[in-house]
Amino acid sequence: MVYFNNDYAEGCHPKILEALARTNLEQTPGYGEDPYCRQAADKIRRACQREDAAVHFLVGGTQTNLTVIAAALRPHQGVLCAVSGHINGHETGAVEAAGHKILTLPSSNGKITAAQVEEAVNAHRADPSFEHAVQPKMVYISNPTELGTLYSRDELEALSQTCRGMGLYLFLDGARLGYGLTAPDNDVSMADLARLCDVFSIGGTKVGALFGEAVVMGNPALAEDFRYLIKQRGGMLAKGRLLGIQFDTLMTDGLYLAIAGHAVAMARQLRQTLMELGIPLLVPGCTNQVFAILPDRILERLARQFVFCEWKRVDDGHRAVRFCTSWATREADVLALCQALRECLQCVH
Amino acid sequence: MVYFNNDYAEGCHPKILEALARTNLEQTPGYGEDPYCRQAADKIRRACQREDAAVHFLVGGTQTNLTVIAAALRPHQGVLCAVSGHINGHETGAVEAAGHKILTLPSSNGKITAAQVEEAVNAHRADPSFEHAVQPKMVYISNPTELGTLYSRDELEALSQTCRGMGLYLFLDGARLGYGLTAPDNDVSMADLARLCDVFSIGGTKVGALFGEAVVMGNPALAEDFRYLIKQRGGMLAKGRLLGIQFDTLMTDGLYLAIAGHAVAMARQLRQTLMELGIPLLVPGCTNQVFAILPDRILERLARQFVFCEWKRVDDGHRAVRFCTSWATREADVLALCQALRECLQCVH
Amino acid sequence: MVYFNNDYAEGCHPKILEALARTNLEQTPGYGEDPYCRQAADKIRRACQREDAAVHFLVGGTQTNLTVIAAALRPHQGVLCAVSGHINGHETGAVEAAGHKILTLPSSNGKITAAQVEEAVNAHRADPSFEHAVQPKMVYISNPTELGTLYSRDELEALSQTCRGMGLYLFLDGARLGYGLTAPDNDVSMADLARLCDVFSIGGTKVGALFGEAVVMGNPALAEDFRYLIKQRGGMLAKGRLLGIQFDTLMTDGLYLAIAGHAVAMARQLRQTLMELGIPLLVPGCTNQVFAILPDRILERLARQFVFCEWKRVDDGHRAVRFCTSWATREADVLALCQALRECLQCVH
Amino acid sequence: MVYFNNDYAEGCHPKILEALARTNLEQTPGYGEDPYCRQAADKIRRACQREDAAVHFLVGGTQTNLTVIAAALRPHQGVLCAVSGHINGHETGAVEAAGHKILTLPSSNGKITAAQVEEAVNAHRADPSFEHAVQPKMVYISNPTELGTLYSRDELEALSQTCRGMGLYLFLDGARLGYGLTAPDNDVSMADLARLCDVFSIGGTKVGALFGEAVVMGNPALAEDFRYLIKQRGGMLAKGRLLGIQFDTLMTDGLYLAIAGHAVAMARQLRQTLMELGIPLLVPGCTNQVFAILPDRILERLARQFVFCEWKRVDDGHRAVRFCTSWATREADVLALCQALRECLQCVH
Repeated sequence: MVYFNNDYAEGCHPKILEALARTNLEQTPGYGEDPYCRQAADKIRRACQREDAAVHFLVGGTQTNLTVIAAALRPHQGVLCAVSGHINGHETGAVEAAGHKILTLPSSNGKITAAQVEEAVNAHRADPSFEHAVQPKMVYISNPTELGTLYSRDELEALSQTCRGMGLYLFLDGARLGYGLTAPDNDVSMADLARLCDVFSIGGTKVGALFGEAVVMGNPALAEDFRYLIKQRGGMLAKGRLLGIQFDTLMTDGLYLAIAGHAVAMARQLRQTLMELGIPLLVPGCTNQVFAILPDRILERLARQFVFCEWKRVDDGHRAVRFCTSWATREADVLALCQALRECLQCVH
Repeated sequence: MVYFNNDYAEGCHPKILEALARTNLEQTPGYGEDPYCRQAADKIRRACQREDAAVHFLVGGTQTNLTVIAAALRPHQGVLCAVSGHINGHETGAVEAAGHKILTLPSSNGKITAAQVEEAVNAHRADPSFEHAVQPKMVYISNPTELGTLYSRDELEALSQTCRGMGLYLFLDGARLGYGLTAPDNDVSMADLARLCDVFSIGGTKVGALFGEAVVMGNPALAEDFRYLIKQRGGMLAKGRLLGIQFDTLMTDGLYLAIAGHAVAMARQLRQTLMELGIPLLVPGCTNQVFAILPDRILERLARQFVFCEWKRVDDGHRAVRFCTSWATREADVLALCQALRECLQCVH
Repeated sequence: MVYFNNDYAEGCHPKILEALARTNLEQTPGYGEDPYCRQAADKIRRACQREDAAVHFLVGGTQTNLTVIAAALRPHQGVLCAVSGHINGHETGAVEAAGHKILTLPSSNGKITAAQVEEAVNAHRADPSFEHAVQPKMVYISNPTELGTLYSRDELEALSQTCRGMGLYLFLDGARLGYGLTAPDNDVSMADLARLCDVFSIGGTKVGALFGEAVVMGNPALAEDFRYLIKQRGGMLAKGRLLGIQFDTLMTDGLYLAIAGHAVAMARQLRQTLMELGIPLLVPGCTNQVFAILPDRILERLARQFVFCEWKRVDDGHRAVRFCTSWATREADVLALCQALRECLQCVH
Repeated sequence: MVYFNNDYAEGCHPKILEALARTNLEQTPGYGEDPYCRQAADKIRRACQREDAAVHFLVGGTQTNLTVIAAALRPHQGVLCAVSGHINGHETGAVEAAGHKILTLPSSNGKITAAQVEEAVNAHRADPSFEHAVQPKMVYISNPTELGTLYSRDELEALSQTCRGMGLYLFLDGARLGYGLTAPDNDVSMADLARLCDVFSIGGTKVGALFGEAVVMGNPALAEDFRYLIKQRGGMLAKGRLLGIQFDTLMTDGLYLAIAGHAVAMARQLRQTLMELGIPLLVPGCTNQVFAILPDRILERLARQFVFCEWKRVDDGHRAVRFCTSWATREADVLALCQALRECLQCVH
């Protein structure tokens, strides 16, 4: 079986394994206070063109999201988020377990707009009994989104301006950031994110690392005492250097973007085949996630050889499924998938 | 100005004041362990035909909801609720502050159905990564709802059966219960609620008491150690007898239903006038809340003499507003409101 | 039976009942936004000589403590407190349920010192892995303490100075404040408290009200958005005026201090008798709580006629018990208790 | 510099690195549902002689502790623990952040006794206002303790019997379990732990893994829905197999105990030298942690070449410090440390 169901089916990029092996018996201080973490943080700050930003490393995405949100909000404050946002539906209520309501906004493509944020905040403030409702204080977006779509720089500028004007924090979840930065339609850089967001994450788990997310905090209000929060929420690795070594490797010689770009190219190849075969997409996109709408019969056949991710039923005979490529995807596997799609379709016609 | 904006603008029924005065200098044990609380609980158990039910008294509605939910759920469990449910929009995230996600279901009339619950739970269980989502474990309904509508006995039977079949708790918020039980279309009794719900509340604050909600727990699993929870969440009144005395008075000689019935009759009178005047209702109803859709100009005029509750804008020239009657509403005030409506409409035509 | 076991065995001062009756059918806005709350808050501000202080009213003591602490602290911060502090042992973990650790300091008389606070904070800051421990950010004291002792103005000045110097909040729980302010040894005024504390409470429940605590916030950082917190934690009374009316009455013509002074005089009478009889006190004191060490046999006899509060076993034959007087204590009952003590002792000798 | 300050200064045992490299490009399901996790869990169940136990893998120790406790307790319940327990002082209030009070018991050697537990629970139950205090429901012990001491089988039997008799859960934190199981004085096996505890952890982070703790739940009540809790608290690794591969390696051919035994032997060598030199220990012990009391002047000299852990000041001229050995400690480094100690002492005399 070949796995296209997600972007974390393999281990890590070989260079990371090499670095781990090379440093294995070195002795370093624990809890992220080692030279590798410092070095990786410096490289990220440089990539962000923000020498003043705080950079921290956490193990996983849910942990990152809940820790950032717990650090930022007072108890009566909540976070605005697309209804499809990862924190809303796929983290077992981690944000609520930290005490905060998620204030969902409708979205068909995984994105929310500055206008939606403005309207929600204004509605809250205009409510004569506003103290009986949760106060919106943070905006959570993911980029790429859970549907593989991307924010443009203009959209981010507008969101950022709205948040700053209204006194909200802007938090961008970059679990798949590499696959966004290297997508053909992308016009956003890490420096843009560091400038426009109060805090954002750079995902390692899905982009070549064994695990690990880097958190970049441009807003010093959020950075205060953040290490206490990491420790309290169980995100502080005793051997913190494991995160430093991984991100140092990824941030050296453009490795992070290079391997992300491979995944994007593989996805494009698949998308092209789907287009040729007249298979509709659930949502357009140009990152490493491909959402295709296929007849049940074809999906049954494909499932004998390939693992993909069930997304949703579209109608009686069709389902949307997700194919993910990753830094580790082999071109031969993509070609095999494309070939299988062609054969299935011929078979059925 | 005459207040029709809510059902808690006055103090309490005179009989309650008398009882408080009569017992004022008696010495009793604190924290709800006095004879008045025992007596009130006994009367409630009898009204519910459930000698085995646990009955507790709390000060307010938000407190009651958050304490019941905190007592019932494990950290990964959430509560299904109409999007218009009081806990979802009007309690400043009290449930989330207790760590639990509210899983909203769409609703146009304030109610949810057994089928909606079943579908939501089945969807959760069918999800291959169900452990990444909050587990539905409780259903919260209010009766009357926030829109003044009522559940029929058949609807409650269906909800109860679904919940029991699927291992969920059914919690009915009865903040305005009296106004439901005495409504013309109602076919539900307290005994029905005690039989069909795992836990429900009987609102005092809005139905003649100074403050206070009684919680009736038919399911012993929920009742275990509940007094610890009341204390921990700040709901245990030192002079607990104040709650006992109030509910004892309300539950004696049918006072609770009698005064609730008055409010319902007052609302009916207003509803009839609206109908005569051709003023549409936002939602049909027969309890103490009347949701009318009126032209802005008329509302401006009415607002010089009456206080009502802004509900929502319906279109460019019309808003829906809520008029509440209560146990304390004077017929003269209702007649004055009806008269004012008539005059306003004539004026405008 | 005569109750001396606590100071909340009766209802409220007759003037409060009168005020509640007088205003009962008035219509006012809810949730503390009525003229009575405004008026009561103004009187408290005047008594505190702090026109700028925020004043809020909550229903009970545990609720007040947990809401103030939840509003003040970030998740990694904790509250320093005497091991005997009410929040530590008698509120069912309400502070922990709000997510915060209580950092206990040893105390034999219910009080803590500025030196203890300074030492604890310095120890935290000197710890090389301080981020692995909870950060002390607030000091909680009660005055009178749970043992009926009092802080002097000098002690409070020192605590206040230490807290401000170290960036900590000082929170004084005044559940029995009236009994402190009127005690013979007291040299502290409400204005002192408003000047020295960031936040303190004025207890109504134990000093003449049916229920209710006023919270005075001199530090604007704590006051921000506090009403959201009150609502979220279930402390916002729909008929908020009940609190306003009660505190307005208590703060008029010196009623609060007058009735507290009565309780203090009653306690002094009892203390004098104990002294005459050679009965030792567990802890010296001059407020409304008297902690006496008595032989078991005498306590058994007393218990036939009087209810008192078991405090702790002192040795094989003796227990310490607490007698409380209150605003409602009748002199005849105190005389009867003194007489009974005399007879018991004669009997035994 | 040579690090003796902790047991997580290096990476992992070479066999683990090899296994990670060997499996690196395999594709497996995520979130701990891969064959390696299954295989590792099976081996642990066999080692525990409990085919029915639930076994889960988490990333770190704080995460493990907070997740187990959050899963086990209702909101009003707390955990009994030695004052020196890791959860009490070194996890930034993670347990309180999950809503639970830690009920500390005094301890000079890091251990607590069945009698202490029994006394605390009986005191709670005998308190007439027990509902105003946190209910003890779990006992947390660590083995080896934070002071390197060990529970005997008899002590664990007594604790287990007390807990079961009183309806409490027994949770053993085995962050350094290997160093306990291989200590000369130890008479406890993994099977004993699985039989006597409701839940215990097997530490990987400090015993040869890059990171990772295995949780063994013999009590099915605790195991229910535990994966939801792991996900919610941020402990579910996307590439869960990393934990499976590591524990599979450690549990194969006795590797875990073999490498732990090495650390214990290294510590014994150091302890022997200290004894020869007449240097007192703060606390006796036979695991991988050595607590020595040394003059400040000697510690200053040692600090030029060795890193150790400051523990506490003993008197004006002496401090207790901790030396840790680990699976990775080189004998040459221990010999160098012993030699340096000898020289320092000669120098000073």
